[in-house]
Amino acid sequence: MTTHALPAGPDDAPAARPGPSQADTVELLGLVAQLEQIAFARLAADASVAPTTDQRLQLSGFAAAAVARRDTVMARITELGADPVAAVAQFDHVLDDFDARTQPSTWWERLLKAYVGYGVADDFCRVAAEGLDAESRRVVLAVLDDAAHAELAVAELDAAGSDDGVLSSRLALWGRRLVGEALGVVQRLLVQRPGLVRLVSSGTGDAVVAADQQADGRTAPANPPTKLFGELTAQHTRRMSRLGLTA
Amino acid sequence: MTTHALPAGPDDAPAARPGPSQADTVELLGLVAQLEQIAFARLAADASVAPTTDQRLQLSGFAAAAVARRDTVMARITELGADPVAAVAQFDHVLDDFDARTQPSTWWERLLKAYVGYGVADDFCRVAAEGLDAESRRVVLAVLDDAAHAELAVAELDAAGSDDGVLSSRLALWGRRLVGEALGVVQRLLVQRPGLVRLVSSGTGDAVVAADQQADGRTAPANPPTKLFGELTAQHTRRMSRLGLTA
Repeated sequence: MTTHALPAGPDDAPAARPGPSQADTVELLGLVAQLEQIAFARLAADASVAPTTDQRLQLSGFAAAAVARRDTVMARITELGADPVAAVAQFDHVLDDFDARTQPSTWWERLLKAYVGYGVADDFCRVAAEGLDAESRRVVLAVLDDAAHAELAVAELDAAGSDDGVLSSRLALWGRRLVGEALGVVQRLLVQRPGLVRLVSSGTGDAVVAADQQADGRTAPANPPTKLFGELTAQHTRRMSRLGLTA
Repeated sequence: MTTHALPAGPDDAPAARPGPSQADTVELLGLVAQLEQIAFARLAADASVAPTTDQRLQLSGFAAAAVARRDTVMARITELGADPVAAVAQFDHVLDDFDARTQPSTWWERLLKAYVGYGVADDFCRVAAEGLDAESRRVVLAVLDDAAHAELAVAELDAAGSDDGVLSSRLALWGRRLVGEALGVVQRLLVQRPGLVRLVSSGTGDAVVAADQQADGRTAPANPPTKLFGELTAQHTRRMSRLGLTA
């Protein structure tokens, strides 16, 4: 919280902001662990409606892997001396809005939601992780790299989409809606979580002003961190084109 | 399938039945793996309605452990040269009826259903495992021994029940309904699955006649294998009294 060790910059210079603290680190780790917990719940729900036994068994396996990743991140929170359950609990409702606004109506929409929605969340965490200490960053990047459940979505969507022009164009539309909602989640996180803003700023050098508070206590309209949103959009385009879908 | 290496006994002697075959072994392993898959689905569903974050995280962890146990059993099926997905798939609906008849209406009823319902299923598999080859038996018993999710149910039910006489007597009633339905599942399995009957008979020495077919092709009324049902009932009583509930 104190900046007395740093030379004070002019008021408007980003360098004057305090760098990420250990509390900020725990905040991001809590978000990553919560996202894995949410991925578990979604994959388990997908498994329960999967069309074949083979898919059910596979999706359940992916759900179990998400729990293992969650536990790796929670172990790091414990190492840092913080309470891992509390760190996760603060993000209990982080995707409730997103989920309510993006109810998939078909199996394909479910798969694409997983791939696109969680893809954006993972990419956000990957960018923010650049601001972490080396060991926490290693843990987060290893966990995010291991999200093999995307492979199933890719294989199935790719096979289905290439046969069916109507499905492809519907899914392209659905993908645009998903990425819009997902970027909205990121935007709200940056408004509500100055700790995450510090990590993103320190990782990207972006002059993030999203977390600034006005004098009356209301949050100022967010000024989207350009590099972050550029990166998230580029990754989304790459992801959609991997499926042969227009981003 | 052949019995030419064994002296033929008189027609009515249990020794005249063919012993368990490798197909019978794969059948039981498929059932155990399916029960772990179902346990996963149930624990994941429980996690999604758990009252606290801590319980949600714990239940998700138990769900992931059920997948690990399932994979251990499926690996053994592969070792035996059979198709693990097909072995599991044949039991895809084994508990559908049980689930439809025992919809829990409260969190406590859910917990007790897990503990009692899956307890009976696990005990059945444990008894049938006595008829397996040594390595398959080792795998099944290790998997069933590791079902730590019961601990949460015990801890919570025990704490709640000891405070609340009304809850205790409701749960005692619910437990009786659950065990009745669970024993019904076992009864149906024995009628439909001669392979499981051979394993139970060979393990317990019970003269099981449940799988006999009448000349017109209908299944004869089941003659419950006494030792098996005695064991299942005794274990149920032990389980209920561990919670301070009347069986």
